[in-house]
Amino acid sequence: MKPPRSNTVEARVRVRYAETDQMGVVYHANYLVWMEVGRVEYWRAQGLRYRDMERDEGILLAVAEVQCRYLAPAYYDEEIVIRTRVAEVNARMVRFEYELVNAVDGRGIATASTKHVFCGRDRRPRKLPEKYHAALGIVRGTR
Amino acid sequence: MKPPRSNTVEARVRVRYAETDQMGVVYHANYLVWMEVGRVEYWRAQGLRYRDMERDEGILLAVAEVQCRYLAPAYYDEEIVIRTRVAEVNARMVRFEYELVNAVDGRGIATASTKHVFCGRDRRPRKLPEKYHAALGIVRGTR
Amino acid sequence: MKPPRSNTVEARVRVRYAETDQMGVVYHANYLVWMEVGRVEYWRAQGLRYRDMERDEGILLAVAEVQCRYLAPAYYDEEIVIRTRVAEVNARMVRFEYELVNAVDGRGIATASTKHVFCGRDRRPRKLPEKYHAALGIVRGTR
Amino acid sequence: MKPPRSNTVEARVRVRYAETDQMGVVYHANYLVWMEVGRVEYWRAQGLRYRDMERDEGILLAVAEVQCRYLAPAYYDEEIVIRTRVAEVNARMVRFEYELVNAVDGRGIATASTKHVFCGRDRRPRKLPEKYHAALGIVRGTR
Repeated sequence: MKPPRSNTVEARVRVRYAETDQMGVVYHANYLVWMEVGRVEYWRAQGLRYRDMERDEGILLAVAEVQCRYLAPAYYDEEIVIRTRVAEVNARMVRFEYELVNAVDGRGIATASTKHVFCGRDRRPRKLPEKYHAALGIVRGTR
Repeated sequence: MKPPRSNTVEARVRVRYAETDQMGVVYHANYLVWMEVGRVEYWRAQGLRYRDMERDEGILLAVAEVQCRYLAPAYYDEEIVIRTRVAEVNARMVRFEYELVNAVDGRGIATASTKHVFCGRDRRPRKLPEKYHAALGIVRGTR
Repeated sequence: MKPPRSNTVEARVRVRYAETDQMGVVYHANYLVWMEVGRVEYWRAQGLRYRDMERDEGILLAVAEVQCRYLAPAYYDEEIVIRTRVAEVNARMVRFEYELVNAVDGRGIATASTKHVFCGRDRRPRKLPEKYHAALGIVRGTR
Repeated sequence: MKPPRSNTVEARVRVRYAETDQMGVVYHANYLVWMEVGRVEYWRAQGLRYRDMERDEGILLAVAEVQCRYLAPAYYDEEIVIRTRVAEVNARMVRFEYELVNAVDGRGIATASTKHVFCGRDRRPRKLPEKYHAALGIVRGTR
């Protein structure tokens, strides 16, 4: 189900030399790292800190699926905006959607989606504790 | 279209410490790097060397899409088998499919797919020269 | 020789999940990537853009030496300050020194040094053009 | 002190596309990852498995220092030999030395050294258990 308000959170990264490859553009696997940066900022914008959830509650978000469409290359030292929103969420899983654009000219770099399963430290599926539900837009009766 | 013989090529990687994260498993973006290892070996098994194609012909394979389903975690120092096959190919693009399994017990780690567009050094789409067609299973009349 | 003013430039990075390893801390090779972030900001603070120098002038900074002392671990989601200064510079090479500290409590994370040789696109040593000398603190008669 | 037999162990890596940068050569931080590959093989050649030591004994090797001299660039798809030996070892620390050469023409790529401190899971210094001493060449009376 869609969360009640589908708010989008922006994060920014500047392309590092280490992230380029000999084609002269960002190596495609690094987009997944930037999406992680996007998720963390999404979390923070909801007043949550993923680090604390993992450390204090023992709740991990195991990645279950990734999809990415590469629209245009990203270049060294460019600033990239990562727009992250929750596309689907319940007490067992969350799916994020991302839009990566060039910060200066708005050129689309990629669109992507990742699906995560809430797990315990033993990596077994575990329901997300209720106190986090509101922040992620999980409404009663939909779990 | 399917290539005439759908042969699968195996490559192997051993999980590096650098590839793990604090969850104690391989960080998900690294699977994309392993798939690249799989593609290079696929190429080599067809008697081609991707490096030479890029250097001598100026043909690049720009990544257009990636999809990955994570089935089970991969752990440090495990050996992983990457099975790569061409799922779709013509003079303009190629789509690879991958199966990642644990080398010892055959446990499925991930299934994935990447789509690539043949480009020139200017990153504009460019048809794959005919001399490479047979190796990749591109048959006449299907371009 | 020491540059006339030994100014220090600060850059900041937030530790990414991808940068941690299964020891629960940042994998040591990633500090070298952060130092690169520090160098780029040093450059920018002098009114230069490393990207332009590389693209427009064909001047590359090939890494010749790296030294790093690891003082304390860095953890996921921490903010790290990278203090970068030029320790030695002439028309042929530049040596940067770095201090990495935790942004919140000032805890020392690492001290490091990198030496770079100015090269052309053919990777052969090449003197840095004079117009960049002042920005890096290269004084006349010391080349 | 030098270990009694200063044996050198060889490991091999093939340069991945992901490891190159837009200079068209391997990004310098990746050499540290290859040294890690070298250490693991050194361990294995002594009949030890670093993974087990970490998992079963709770002994970690925290990196304390890294030094690397870059001699010649490494290129995509080249095979690199990593020669690893123990330069110094006692119950508290071990220092490895590395020589990286091109597997085909023997061209020197880099020489390097890493110092590690034996730690417990709490990352506090901890003496290496005696049962590992012989394998690493720690002789009695030198601890």
